[in-house]
Amino acid sequence: MRPAVVLFSGGLDSSTCLAVAREDGFDPQALCVRYGQRHERELEAAAEVAEAMAVPLKMISLDLRAIGGSALTADIEVPKDAPIGGRIPVTYVPARNTVLLALALGYAEVLGAEDIYLGVNAIDYSGYPDCRPAFLEAFEKLANVATAAAVEGRARYHLHAPLIALSKAEIVRLGTRLGVPYGLTHSCYDPSASGRACGRCDSCRLRAAGFREAGVPDPTLYSPR
Amino acid sequence: MRPAVVLFSGGLDSSTCLAVAREDGFDPQALCVRYGQRHERELEAAAEVAEAMAVPLKMISLDLRAIGGSALTADIEVPKDAPIGGRIPVTYVPARNTVLLALALGYAEVLGAEDIYLGVNAIDYSGYPDCRPAFLEAFEKLANVATAAAVEGRARYHLHAPLIALSKAEIVRLGTRLGVPYGLTHSCYDPSASGRACGRCDSCRLRAAGFREAGVPDPTLYSPR
Repeated sequence: MRPAVVLFSGGLDSSTCLAVAREDGFDPQALCVRYGQRHERELEAAAEVAEAMAVPLKMISLDLRAIGGSALTADIEVPKDAPIGGRIPVTYVPARNTVLLALALGYAEVLGAEDIYLGVNAIDYSGYPDCRPAFLEAFEKLANVATAAAVEGRARYHLHAPLIALSKAEIVRLGTRLGVPYGLTHSCYDPSASGRACGRCDSCRLRAAGFREAGVPDPTLYSPR
Repeated sequence: MRPAVVLFSGGLDSSTCLAVAREDGFDPQALCVRYGQRHERELEAAAEVAEAMAVPLKMISLDLRAIGGSALTADIEVPKDAPIGGRIPVTYVPARNTVLLALALGYAEVLGAEDIYLGVNAIDYSGYPDCRPAFLEAFEKLANVATAAAVEGRARYHLHAPLIALSKAEIVRLGTRLGVPYGLTHSCYDPSASGRACGRCDSCRLRAAGFREAGVPDPTLYSPR
């Protein structure tokens, strides 16, 4: 089986993406980045999900707090119960997906992989610019002029974003069918010290609505209101 | 003065680039990445050069040794006295400039800068794919769909590679005219424990030839042969 690098956060979307990459016939290689995210709890989830799915996990550390500029990487409060859609929210991390994809590209080149999966979604999402098709197309073009493997004709990179046009409910149904251990995943931007989900940030509410609409029991442990 | 982010390694090219950004009328903001490079000595040089040029320096840490695949980030020997040109050498770091530019883009967005400088050169260089105009054009396109600032019309990103078409001798002459403190810069990929340049890696030889051809005294401290 050919390897594929899967950008992996331990959340609902990227865990589903991991299962899709395997379903597509690849040998998924999870890449997880400790970038100084407020919800570092997600990295524990990533390790548990990867183990449960028997997928190798590579962890890279990168200090995006040195740059800041986001509620996830600076001392800015995560919005609760805020309208979703409209302006790009303060949980947007400047150039994050560009950074993550660049790391995935480097890892793919070292592994001899040509395929990179990421779990971005442009339907039930917070409006982040680096989750949209135009961004993915531009990155794929870049990848194919950026690396030695591409320039020497040894690789032709493909970006896969299998969830891009799915609703959150469709993602939950897909992952449930593929056996994704959603009870181990973590999506909350602002978990409690014990790791419980707040239930009120964008990420929690999109996730909860997905389970609700899919008619799948939500296994998430929420903080008491 | 408008800020510009300058990718900065403490080497000859990026130090010259810093001076050019200032000459172009920008307020240069140096961004330096500790990525696990074998020649971490260059980061000390970066701090010294930035101080001498009175430029603010931001340092970000990122562990590319977790990925490896290069003589600069893995236990692979740095070639000495090898022909320059032809095949891409093992000092190529997979997707490194993509990663560095992604970080520069994030930093630019946080600073409200629209201009990013990098000291890549496609004449007297080692043939790295991510030093070529096609790569830079693709990254600039990506930048303008990747960020909130671009998508919301607050920024239009420009990549500046003022050294791209200069010979190493022309770079040395330019930097000498602009007062770059070359004696503080470090280019060697494989310095001695005390920080002296090996004089035999690609980077050392391209640099030495630049000084020689420019007729400028070479201030580099080399290890004894």
